[in-house]
Amino acid sequence: MQRTLCSDLSLATGPVSLEGWVHRRRELARVTFLVVRDRSGLAQVVLPAGTPVPPEETTIRVVGTAIANPQAPGGVEVVDATIEALTEPAATPPAELWRPTLDVSLPTLLDHAPVLWRHPAQRATWELAAASLRGFRATLDGSGFTEIATPTFVESATESGSSVFEVDYFGRPAYLAQSPQFYKQQMVGVLERVYEVGPVFRAEPHDTVRHLAEYRSLDVELGFVRDHRDVLAVLRDVLAGMLSAVHEHAAPAVARLGATIPVVPEEIPVIHFADALALVGAPADEPDLAPEHERALGAWALETHGSDFLAVEGYPMAKRPFYTHPWTGRGLEARSARTSTADGEWSNSFDLLFRGLELVTGGQRLHRPSDYDAAIRARGEDPADYAAYLQAFRHGMPPHGGFAIGLERWVARLVEAANIREVTLFPRDLHRLTP
Amino acid sequence: MQRTLCSDLSLATGPVSLEGWVHRRRELARVTFLVVRDRSGLAQVVLPAGTPVPPEETTIRVVGTAIANPQAPGGVEVVDATIEALTEPAATPPAELWRPTLDVSLPTLLDHAPVLWRHPAQRATWELAAASLRGFRATLDGSGFTEIATPTFVESATESGSSVFEVDYFGRPAYLAQSPQFYKQQMVGVLERVYEVGPVFRAEPHDTVRHLAEYRSLDVELGFVRDHRDVLAVLRDVLAGMLSAVHEHAAPAVARLGATIPVVPEEIPVIHFADALALVGAPADEPDLAPEHERALGAWALETHGSDFLAVEGYPMAKRPFYTHPWTGRGLEARSARTSTADGEWSNSFDLLFRGLELVTGGQRLHRPSDYDAAIRARGEDPADYAAYLQAFRHGMPPHGGFAIGLERWVARLVEAANIREVTLFPRDLHRLTP
Repeated sequence: MQRTLCSDLSLATGPVSLEGWVHRRRELARVTFLVVRDRSGLAQVVLPAGTPVPPEETTIRVVGTAIANPQAPGGVEVVDATIEALTEPAATPPAELWRPTLDVSLPTLLDHAPVLWRHPAQRATWELAAASLRGFRATLDGSGFTEIATPTFVESATESGSSVFEVDYFGRPAYLAQSPQFYKQQMVGVLERVYEVGPVFRAEPHDTVRHLAEYRSLDVELGFVRDHRDVLAVLRDVLAGMLSAVHEHAAPAVARLGATIPVVPEEIPVIHFADALALVGAPADEPDLAPEHERALGAWALETHGSDFLAVEGYPMAKRPFYTHPWTGRGLEARSARTSTADGEWSNSFDLLFRGLELVTGGQRLHRPSDYDAAIRARGEDPADYAAYLQAFRHGMPPHGGFAIGLERWVARLVEAANIREVTLFPRDLHRLTP
Repeated sequence: MQRTLCSDLSLATGPVSLEGWVHRRRELARVTFLVVRDRSGLAQVVLPAGTPVPPEETTIRVVGTAIANPQAPGGVEVVDATIEALTEPAATPPAELWRPTLDVSLPTLLDHAPVLWRHPAQRATWELAAASLRGFRATLDGSGFTEIATPTFVESATESGSSVFEVDYFGRPAYLAQSPQFYKQQMVGVLERVYEVGPVFRAEPHDTVRHLAEYRSLDVELGFVRDHRDVLAVLRDVLAGMLSAVHEHAAPAVARLGATIPVVPEEIPVIHFADALALVGAPADEPDLAPEHERALGAWALETHGSDFLAVEGYPMAKRPFYTHPWTGRGLEARSARTSTADGEWSNSFDLLFRGLELVTGGQRLHRPSDYDAAIRARGEDPADYAAYLQAFRHGMPPHGGFAIGLERWVARLVEAANIREVTLFPRDLHRLTP
């Protein structure tokens, strides 16, 4: 008999075959209730008292008759059922998965991830992640972008000061890419508009609620931009596409979580870095925003613009990587009179704050080979050490820019998780390498 | 002025602004032809003789007037044009990118990848890859599958005999995952139907035309299957979806390459391993198919079934990983009378040959915890060493199976490339770690 999914049971009457997990068994004096869980949802099976039902989490097949019962979930339940176990009786789970919330400590959650991800509310967080990925790609596929796949193994650890993982690569050292930055730029030279979703690796010995040693980076890069504002416009559409996909493909997950899905404004409000410092009362020579500044700016954006998102543009060049394009002035109208510091120190880059936390870094990159040579020499390095990367620029590159979104950080903010590990399937950090 | 893409020029008349690369400049006695290349295609600009045009590959903006000319590509060309360089004059490319074919040695192609991928025919191979990825995901998204993201760092190198890369993970050893196998299985316990696209890593010191140290694995795993034939049916739909996306999203690339895109039959022909050995005249006790056997079987499938695809099922358990499910007999009708060897030695697994080369390995996995314990002990190992993985099985798993497609191998077969490196953006192998 063809399998019926639990979510389709409300459409069924007569003989049905369900396949799934024993979500809950409840033995009353006169009757035994069995709730079956499959990928689509839950279904209720009513059995005569005393019917043996395998322990919770055992996989089973239930063959029975679907009948209407207004009190059953979905208005239909299964009666006259026979139950066939598809595996051995399951061991008792580390927490009762049928309870509405999964009330366990973070270490328990992570140690028993293969089982505890089955809890419908826990699983829902990942369903938001998967839907977000769909929306990310659909938006870009519809805008002339091409997906690329760039290498994890890189020869040298040059991009930034943060630590990298070293690998024994056939007897010589190699490093795991901290980002596809250099490669996505090179591919702008080929395809103009590219994106990549993949793991990136940070060996920084952080032990915070926001950092992982391995995370999924959603990387975008595009050519023929005027400046970072064109990049921000694409980011806006991508975020809107991600949220729209969450509504379209993960509505039950949103409901299960009671999550508040934000709306992306038609134009994300932008504030210049110097104005942002002034707004939060920080000294004008601060080179970066502290977490409390980000929170204050997030609150300000919500109050003033009704927006969960705020872009801060013009970050000081000193805090940005060497390939960052200096400030060129568009968006000047957004700056207050007091931001009269020499423009040279600002950049055509931005951070996007989502609910008062940095979610995305982006901006315009240098594209002239002579600018690269100068920027690399200014760091006391030799452009020859970047020869492979600089090839693309010496052979003609357009003005371009891009951004990267951290998938886990995105979901954590979406569901307002206290710790990024709660929304990562199998997190990797300073201490954790298993399960 | 709004930018016009080259591919939209045929719809334009009057003032236009193009942005792209100098694909070719051709200075004749009375006139200079400039061909502009952007992500969408090529456009012809006609200039008075002696007009300075930047060197090939320089990025430029061309502002001019579009007029009909039946002899121009697309029937329209741009005249009365001014040219603005968007960067410094480009260095001379390592090969002339405007020639119809890129006639360079493999080392030259790989050393200059950032530039030579710009050649329209070379780029076309990647466009097939990107379209294939779209089709892969679209098929699975439409069939109840959820995308997952599983860890690259793993604690131990247990899955198979092939070599793994070792990483210094905060002072202790970790390994790079050879496949998401263990994790995708665990996630079947959560989501039933999952897929993942990501890099996997093989440290085997192979130096062949078919192997890379890092490649993109398209992994699928699904629960509640009867046996490997259900898995094969999903694989069939996935391949058909990938090819359909190639036609839909990469038709110009197919045309540029002159590639012959195969048709996936409604049902992929299946032959039992024992029958396959007999067919190619190999001894009945051979444990595997040699490359010449695969080629012969590919030719046979094309001749007998008109199919570029052939599934060989029932591979001996001895050649399969420990989680492989033994043969359970469905599909027996496909076997000849001579395959009377004890069934115990065969497996519910298959290889898919595409044009006579192995493209996909798949099959049904064990799902009962006691079967895992026995299989692991039979290898002389201790199930306790697999505790994290086995958690999922002890807590209830359905009969399940899956497969993995190597993206680069898929594209190589699609375009009939002699070496997998030709279709990999930045290949990594025994010798190559750059660009």
